[in-house]
Amino acid sequence: MASILCGVDLGGTKLGIGLVTEGGDILDQGTWHDHVTRRPDDLMDDIALRVRDLLKRNGFGVGDLRGICVGTAGHLRFRDGVVITMSNLPGYKGYPIRDRLAERLGTRIVVDNDANAQAWGEYLHGAGAGFRNMVFMTISTQIGAGIVLEGRLLRGMTGTAGEIGHSIVDPSGELLCPCGNRGCLISLASGVAIPGAVKRGLLAGTKSDLIDLAGLGSATLDGEFIARGLASGDRLCAGVMADFARYIGIGVYNIFQILNPEAVVLGGGLMNWGAPFLEGIRTTVTGLARDMMYEEMRILPSACAAPGLVGAASLVLGD
Amino acid sequence: MASILCGVDLGGTKLGIGLVTEGGDILDQGTWHDHVTRRPDDLMDDIALRVRDLLKRNGFGVGDLRGICVGTAGHLRFRDGVVITMSNLPGYKGYPIRDRLAERLGTRIVVDNDANAQAWGEYLHGAGAGFRNMVFMTISTQIGAGIVLEGRLLRGMTGTAGEIGHSIVDPSGELLCPCGNRGCLISLASGVAIPGAVKRGLLAGTKSDLIDLAGLGSATLDGEFIARGLASGDRLCAGVMADFARYIGIGVYNIFQILNPEAVVLGGGLMNWGAPFLEGIRTTVTGLARDMMYEEMRILPSACAAPGLVGAASLVLGD
Repeated sequence: MASILCGVDLGGTKLGIGLVTEGGDILDQGTWHDHVTRRPDDLMDDIALRVRDLLKRNGFGVGDLRGICVGTAGHLRFRDGVVITMSNLPGYKGYPIRDRLAERLGTRIVVDNDANAQAWGEYLHGAGAGFRNMVFMTISTQIGAGIVLEGRLLRGMTGTAGEIGHSIVDPSGELLCPCGNRGCLISLASGVAIPGAVKRGLLAGTKSDLIDLAGLGSATLDGEFIARGLASGDRLCAGVMADFARYIGIGVYNIFQILNPEAVVLGGGLMNWGAPFLEGIRTTVTGLARDMMYEEMRILPSACAAPGLVGAASLVLGD
Repeated sequence: MASILCGVDLGGTKLGIGLVTEGGDILDQGTWHDHVTRRPDDLMDDIALRVRDLLKRNGFGVGDLRGICVGTAGHLRFRDGVVITMSNLPGYKGYPIRDRLAERLGTRIVVDNDANAQAWGEYLHGAGAGFRNMVFMTISTQIGAGIVLEGRLLRGMTGTAGEIGHSIVDPSGELLCPCGNRGCLISLASGVAIPGAVKRGLLAGTKSDLIDLAGLGSATLDGEFIARGLASGDRLCAGVMADFARYIGIGVYNIFQILNPEAVVLGGGLMNWGAPFLEGIRTTVTGLARDMMYEEMRILPSACAAPGLVGAASLVLGD
């Protein structure tokens, strides 16, 4: 009897595919980084081949799958499994991932937002377990989010609900989001915002042992750069972290006011900045909410291993 | 058999009480403006007396009521009917409206946020009818909102969900919200923001036929003042309206990204500024959403007569 679930995590830098049990355990998985320049149809060929290979090396065939869920960034038409826009992979506008992959694999295909998949993973098996109303935010190259209300993912009319990263929290922000707007959370406090934040700090005269204005053009200014600076006590990096904590805190505070969930779970690469970053976010939220918050909204770090893969796979069974 | 519903709209300037049929028709109603300085227990006495009077003059008694729902501004503990904070009526912090009113009237009492009640009225009988996922925003002295998802009001953990007016959309905003924060929608684009917006316009040199800097201290700068200016072509008032349309548009755009509802219904006194205000809001949303929005989110003016009373009364039956 078909009982294996397959999750595909199609991100801007990484393609992950995992075979997962109905209980949420990963049986096997693979990761690739060669997909970004592939044309959509060619990538669907790759995914189909890799799913078959993974199944084969574990003694399974496509007939053993209950289905595949692809979690991918961007605005999606959930019911149809079609991309609306995707800012981190070119060429996917309007692309029908669900139907193209179903043609190649002959099994049930679900396509959902990658942050929805991660939210579902955290809700089932991670820091969100036990909270019927929770929000997951991933603070990574960009910012995604998934909203679980009364134990179900909120998808909205078209399927694009949860794009908290695109909500505008400072229209006087100087940096452009890849979506083209200014002042959304992504443009202020995600990986794509780091180079601009470093530059602003240097121009404002903040000293850094790691970098100066002359070196700005050649350095790779990403989350790991800031993490190195935090470890060595670099003032500039500490300032970037504090700014980001304030903006993410504003985003989380807005979630409190709009949704009043029991918990907000934070994941993604920038959360590796550690406890001071999480505390900065919490302090911002508490400072803004004051006596408007009666029951404490928990703000928790992600606790699910591979929530993208496990969550996507689990979404094969529905939410 | 008990079949009459009673809705109480307890606002910052007005107390409304209405008897409503289960079909949403208003049988009788009264409005008072003497409640703002009353102590909470005394106001509960007033409400109980006035409900009994309304019932009596229509040939009913308390036994004919299925219950009473009080819609009131502020953060509430929904299940317990207790006020957390209320910025437009002093003395209600922690006040148990439900129990105090139940002691006086001996019927079922529900207490809900006033914007939730209005949202429910619009959903059942107004511009939101037919949209299973809709958001109602009232742009008035302050800004309230209610969120209907899958045909039910979203209340969240404690009951404070929907406070979109307190979400922060411009932390560099100069004006304080009565809640104490800067940059929330209320502080930028509601009745309480009008005096500051007029002053900023005058200081920036915008000419006005209605007012100058010298007259700023004595004039009543409210929504009606701006409406008069719009009618006479006053540039300053047009500028205030344009600023407010942009900020409300950002708020509505954020609703699109976070909730992706089918419709946003806008009510409240400032919507009396008319079609150019509504168009300014729509244009802001469209300009920000661009190709991220696939199915059109309707942005509609309120269409329910007395949504606060009818919605509150209907909430006696649950949502």
